[in-house]
Amino acid sequence: MASKLAAECIFCKIIRGDIPSVKLLETETTFAFLDVGPLSDGHALVIPKYHAEKLHQLPDEYLADTLPVAKKIAAALNADNYNILQNNGRLAHQEVPHVHFHVIPKPSAEEGLTIGWPAKKANVDKLKELASKLKL
Amino acid sequence: MASKLAAECIFCKIIRGDIPSVKLLETETTFAFLDVGPLSDGHALVIPKYHAEKLHQLPDEYLADTLPVAKKIAAALNADNYNILQNNGRLAHQEVPHVHFHVIPKPSAEEGLTIGWPAKKANVDKLKELASKLKL
Ligand SMILES: [Zn+2]
Ligand SMILES: [Zn+2]
Repeated sequence: MASKLAAECIFCKIIRGDIPSVKLLETETTFAFLDVGPLSDGHALVIPKYHAEKLHQLPDEYLADTLPVAKKIAAALNADNYNILQNNGRLAHQEVPHVHFHVIPKPSAEEGLTIGWPAKKANVDKLKELASKLKL
Repeated sequence: MASKLAAECIFCKIIRGDIPSVKLLETETTFAFLDVGPLSDGHALVIPKYHAEKLHQLPDEYLADTLPVAKKIAAALNADNYNILQNNGRLAHQEVPHVHFHVIPKPSAEEGLTIGWPAKKANVDKLKELASKLKL
């Protein structure tokens, strides 16, 4: 499978080796390296070798080994607590417009990702109505 | 591929249909449904049909179509901004001990996931040292 990279994207440059990175591992479709602005020790990024800004724009074949790679890194980091996070869009905290999955160890309350969880209680009939409208 | 489910797990019960859910879609290895405690409209959960508490405990074959399923849901929700999140361990905000990926639309600053990002600036030599120690 050929990678499809963009000329001016910082992550595409890292995949091509035009910008150095601390690489962890690489497969035919996936590249993984350590984040230089980590939330905790071992904070890694797993990226498809295909330039797309958001998850829903990626071909499925570039998504099949993303999680197995993330899993391998999580296992090697030997963290009891960690988060996998992928942000789409500026409002959702995406900073680089190339799909990337964060693997973020959470060794203590102070380190790693912090999360706000403003959950509502759903009305099940409304959920069913929403589900019935989705083209899946 | 046979699913491997636990007797007393709430998500395993949802997969088996012993507890009702608002199902979105299902594949041989993956089950997706709407969260009843949503952070925003359309908040969905994508879970492997294999009982494991944390990502690194799952066989790879149960991870191959997780993201394609999450992607399909994100596309159907038609959200410009959204987060994919999977928490491992209580300290990392995991509430149900069966691996689950959240698909969380972020329609506004007030709705959806909020994130704290206490990034540090890494020393590249220390990153290289860390990477060299990982068994990958
Ligand atoms: Zn790119
Ligand atoms: Zn379970």
